[in-house]
Amino acid sequence: MPTETITVSECAAFLRTRDNFLILTHLRPDGDTIGCAAALCVALRDIGKTAHILRNAEVTPLFEPLVEDYYAPDGEYGTIVTVDMASELTMMLKGGDPYVGRVDLSIDHHPSNTGYAKRTLVDGSRAACGEIVLDVITALNTALIPEIVTAIYVAVSTDTGCFSYNNTNAGSFRAAAICAEHGADVAELNRRLFREKTRGRLAIEGHVLSTIEFAHDGRAAFVVITNADIERCGATEDDLNDIASLASGIKGVVVAATIRELDGTESCKVSLRSKPEFDSNALAQRFGGGGHRAAAGFTRRVAAVQLRDELYAAIGEALDA
Amino acid sequence: MPTETITVSECAAFLRTRDNFLILTHLRPDGDTIGCAAALCVALRDIGKTAHILRNAEVTPLFEPLVEDYYAPDGEYGTIVTVDMASELTMMLKGGDPYVGRVDLSIDHHPSNTGYAKRTLVDGSRAACGEIVLDVITALNTALIPEIVTAIYVAVSTDTGCFSYNNTNAGSFRAAAICAEHGADVAELNRRLFREKTRGRLAIEGHVLSTIEFAHDGRAAFVVITNADIERCGATEDDLNDIASLASGIKGVVVAATIRELDGTESCKVSLRSKPEFDSNALAQRFGGGGHRAAAGFTRRVAAVQLRDELYAAIGEALDA
Repeated sequence: MPTETITVSECAAFLRTRDNFLILTHLRPDGDTIGCAAALCVALRDIGKTAHILRNAEVTPLFEPLVEDYYAPDGEYGTIVTVDMASELTMMLKGGDPYVGRVDLSIDHHPSNTGYAKRTLVDGSRAACGEIVLDVITALNTALIPEIVTAIYVAVSTDTGCFSYNNTNAGSFRAAAICAEHGADVAELNRRLFREKTRGRLAIEGHVLSTIEFAHDGRAAFVVITNADIERCGATEDDLNDIASLASGIKGVVVAATIRELDGTESCKVSLRSKPEFDSNALAQRFGGGGHRAAAGFTRRVAAVQLRDELYAAIGEALDA
Repeated sequence: MPTETITVSECAAFLRTRDNFLILTHLRPDGDTIGCAAALCVALRDIGKTAHILRNAEVTPLFEPLVEDYYAPDGEYGTIVTVDMASELTMMLKGGDPYVGRVDLSIDHHPSNTGYAKRTLVDGSRAACGEIVLDVITALNTALIPEIVTAIYVAVSTDTGCFSYNNTNAGSFRAAAICAEHGADVAELNRRLFREKTRGRLAIEGHVLSTIEFAHDGRAAFVVITNADIERCGATEDDLNDIASLASGIKGVVVAATIRELDGTESCKVSLRSKPEFDSNALAQRFGGGGHRAAAGFTRRVAAVQLRDELYAAIGEALDA
């Protein structure tokens, strides 16, 4: 059954008519999905609803404080909502399988959203799903209390790389201004999210910067991060957050592929970052993944070395096309 | 004679009554002063005024394109305006001496503005002077054409470290949103100002991050950059710009010392960066240098290894004091 595409005000109206919400975040959760879940949960409670967030075992210590007070007890839920989840098949959080095929509402900013939910509020022009959730919360006419705007600021600032990525636009700045005006502690959040680095982060950045491989006349960059590298650097999952963007900032590099071994599996996660002239989403889709034009990815059960060779060829073709 | 403190609308009214403007930027010009000068000059021309910018010999290639079309020919000017200049004595640009004591209007965001101009529009709560200049231009009722908002975006984004510094606030985000809405190419500007790094820069960052030495319970960090390191990395002088700040962003590090060999001499340059609880200036003065509390330095004719040992001891003492 095709999804019903809805507007922000229709979304707010829908939320008002329902209750007993369970909010789902995506696999390998980032600041956007976690921030959206926290903000939406608090706002729904604020208008008198019962709302919980399904515990995502992969949430990192950096983001867990935003959601830990709202974890859902076991039970039945009346309304299932996903935030920032493009596909319920490939991006469903661990433990979310019972909800596949049962999502009532998907709020998302991925143009590639598969329309898996009964209702979909999607705006592919927004840098962060948090911008859309802020619009929804505003339409709910609930107070923008500090807890809500803090979560939204985390969502928007992390998805835009502190307003430095290509996706940053007027809407991102407007959302951030609203967050700052309503009590988000921008200085403290920026320090924790962007400015202060752990030793593990520094070490893994050092590894990446020292081992980048350039190809295709310097237009492509490859980075491989093995489990041994991660262990040697003492890097945590938080330390690896958005490590893929490092290589893409190099002058002349059009597309950067960061290949990372996933501990305890024989799989690798590939993150692609590109300048406007290269479509990372199209490349990721060839490998069974997806995302945005400027940032996409996929996971595959292939050794890092082999994956690097396959990507080398595929990127060469795409660059020449 | 004390300065007349004026409001944004009074400032706009004053600009409307005057003509033949000369705009002055400050010594060692940054993106804020250059962006303000460019935006104000274009806006004044847009309302039919004659306006020029006094050439600042220290402007860097990154910012020169904003102002180079507006340099003032020799001659007499009717109205002298400074932007982002806290003091006409210590911050007057080179070649600006004839205008000391003759400034008609100072637009500034430094709380320390000395009130040297006949009229002063100052707001110390703003992160960038560009935010105030945007208010003035808006009050002039001229169109926010792309050239103006591009210059304002440069001013605001550089003075806030791409919206990551402590000074970033709702006003900074609001100004950036207006710039983005009116045609500032945020993606391209961010790429040039913040994201794009040369391979030489990446390599030297990789070297620094891979070789940082921690001491004194992780409160101190030492970095040594030899001539051989610089050569191996292919790093230029531009690539080494502010490399000292890398080590100081690490969690727990209170003071970071970056020791760099100076090519063709037997000297080393030491750059100190510290968190508020440590006085880099005091430490640098012990070695014959100086600077600010958070950033100071000195140069000495001593081998890097020996300098590191001397600093190790001196920093240990200072941390324990």
